[in-house]
Amino acid sequence: MKTFDLKYYLSLKRALIDDRLDKILRENSSGSPRLINAMRYSLMAGGKRLRPVLCIASSEAVGGDAACAIPAACAIELIHTYSLIHDDLPAMDNDEIRRGKPTCHIAFDEATAILSGDALLTIAFEILSEAGINDSSGRLNWLKIIRIISRASGCSGMIEGQMKDISSEGVRLDLKDLESLHFLKTGALIQASVESGALLGNGSFSQIDRLMIYAGNIGLAFQVTDDLLNVEGDAKEMGKATGTDGLKKKNTYPFLVGIEKSKTYALELVNNALQALEDFDNKSDPLRAIASYIIERKR
Amino acid sequence: MKTFDLKYYLSLKRALIDDRLDKILRENSSGSPRLINAMRYSLMAGGKRLRPVLCIASSEAVGGDAACAIPAACAIELIHTYSLIHDDLPAMDNDEIRRGKPTCHIAFDEATAILSGDALLTIAFEILSEAGINDSSGRLNWLKIIRIISRASGCSGMIEGQMKDISSEGVRLDLKDLESLHFLKTGALIQASVESGALLGNGSFSQIDRLMIYAGNIGLAFQVTDDLLNVEGDAKEMGKATGTDGLKKKNTYPFLVGIEKSKTYALELVNNALQALEDFDNKSDPLRAIASYIIERKR
Repeated sequence: MKTFDLKYYLSLKRALIDDRLDKILRENSSGSPRLINAMRYSLMAGGKRLRPVLCIASSEAVGGDAACAIPAACAIELIHTYSLIHDDLPAMDNDEIRRGKPTCHIAFDEATAILSGDALLTIAFEILSEAGINDSSGRLNWLKIIRIISRASGCSGMIEGQMKDISSEGVRLDLKDLESLHFLKTGALIQASVESGALLGNGSFSQIDRLMIYAGNIGLAFQVTDDLLNVEGDAKEMGKATGTDGLKKKNTYPFLVGIEKSKTYALELVNNALQALEDFDNKSDPLRAIASYIIERKR
Repeated sequence: MKTFDLKYYLSLKRALIDDRLDKILRENSSGSPRLINAMRYSLMAGGKRLRPVLCIASSEAVGGDAACAIPAACAIELIHTYSLIHDDLPAMDNDEIRRGKPTCHIAFDEATAILSGDALLTIAFEILSEAGINDSSGRLNWLKIIRIISRASGCSGMIEGQMKDISSEGVRLDLKDLESLHFLKTGALIQASVESGALLGNGSFSQIDRLMIYAGNIGLAFQVTDDLLNVEGDAKEMGKATGTDGLKKKNTYPFLVGIEKSKTYALELVNNALQALEDFDNKSDPLRAIASYIIERKR
C-alpha cells in the first residue's frame, strides 16, 4: 500500500485556500489602504491553514470536493485570523510577535488592529451568504453553516474561551477546566470546520457524527501538542532539558500531568480520532494523515 | 385627518424590540457572567432603537408586519451596539461616557469590552441564520439580508467609516468627504435596516428602491442633526450662544457651512425622504413621522 503523501496534499490545498483568500482580499480592497493592508498582513502571515484544510478534507471524506467547501473553509480562516488579532491586543494577551513577525497592532496600530479584526469577522459572513445565494439547492445547508460557525466562534464558543483564558491567568485550573477552556478556545471552531465541510459534501448524519468525534479528539490533541511545543521551546530557550520553570508559568497539560503523560495522552486522542474514521474509505486518508501530523508537527 | 401618533408607535415597537433583545441575551447567557453582563449593559443602555424601528416600519410600509422583521431588526441593533462599544475604546475615540453612563470598557475593562463587541456582532449572524432556517419559503431572502447587513457593516461600510473618521481627526474635510464619511459610518447601516425590512415585507423592487432613497436622506439628516445637537450642546456647556470654539473642533456640517445652512439642509433632506414615499399609502405613516422626528429630536 502506498503511503498517503500529506505534504503534497497540504501544499495543494493551501495553495487553493491562499488563492481564494487573496481573491477575497482583492474584492474587499476599496477602503482605506491601512485597513486593507492590516487585514492582508495578518491573513497572509503564513498560518498553517489547519481549519480550512480540515473543512475541505471532511467534505472529500464524505464524497464532496474542495470546490464546494472552499467558501466555508475561507470564512473559518478569516474568523481564526480575526481571533488571533484581537487576542494579541495589549488589553488581552499583549503579544508582540506571532509567527516570527510583529503582531498586527505592533505593525500597524491598535485601532487598525481592532477594526481589521472586526472586518475579517464580518467578511466571513458575507462570503457564506454569497455562497448560499449562488447555490440554489443548498441554501438550507449554508444557513446551517452560518449558524454552526457563528455559534462556534461566539460567546458560547471561541469568545467565551478567550474570556476564560484571560480570567484564569495566575489561577490554577484542574484538568477538567483546562479541557473545557481548550474546547471553547480552539476545539469548537475546529469541530465547526469539520462539520461544515461534511455538510457541504452531503455527508449522512452518522458520518457527520463520527467526523465530529474525530474533530473533538484532534482539537484537543492539537492543544496538548501546542503546550508540549511551548514547554520544549521554553526549555530550549532557557538552556535546560526539563524546562521546570517554564512548566510552572501557565495552565498547561505538561504542568498538570507532566511531559510524558501529556505525550501519551496526545497519542491516545489521535488514536480515538482514527478509530472514529474506521468505517470511512480511503477518501478520508487526508483526515487520517492530519491526525497523526498534529502531534508530530514541530511548530 | 388624524395625525399619526409617533410617540405611541415608537413605544410599542421599542417594547417589542427590547423584549426580543432581552430574550436573545437570556439565550446567550451560559458563559462568563462578566462577558454576559457587559453585553447586556451596552445593549440595554437605553438606545433610541432607530435602526430596528426603521426595519420594522419598512416592512409594514410594504405590507409586511413587525413579526417577520424582528430578527433582522434585532441583528442590526446588536451590530450597532457592538460598533459603539468598539468605537468608544481608548485606542479609538477614547470615550468614557455614552448615554450618560460609563462606556463599556470603563464599566468593565478593555478586554471585556472588545470581546463583548465581538460577541454581539457574532450573535447577530446567528440570529439571522436561525431565522432563515425556520422560514422555509424565505431562505433566499435571509441569505440576502445577511449579505446586505455584512456589507453595510464591513470594510466597505461602517468599519471603513470608523477608519476614515479616526484618520481624519485634525484634518479639514470638504463637504463631499464629510458626506461620504457619514454615509459609511451611519448611513449604510440605516439603509440596510430599511432594505432588510422591505425585503422581509416582500416589497417590490420599485418600492425597495424608493425606500432606499428615503433611507439615504434620513441617514444624512440624522447626522446633520447630530452635529447641530453637539454644537448646541457644546455651546450650552461653554455658556456661549454661538459656540464658535465648539465649531472649530471637528469636521461637522455647522463648521463647514454654518448653523443656519445646516438646519436648512437637514430640512431639505427630510423633504427628499418624504417625497420618496409619495406613492406609498398610509402604512408608511410611521416612516414619514420618523423622518420629521429625526430633525426635531433633542437627543
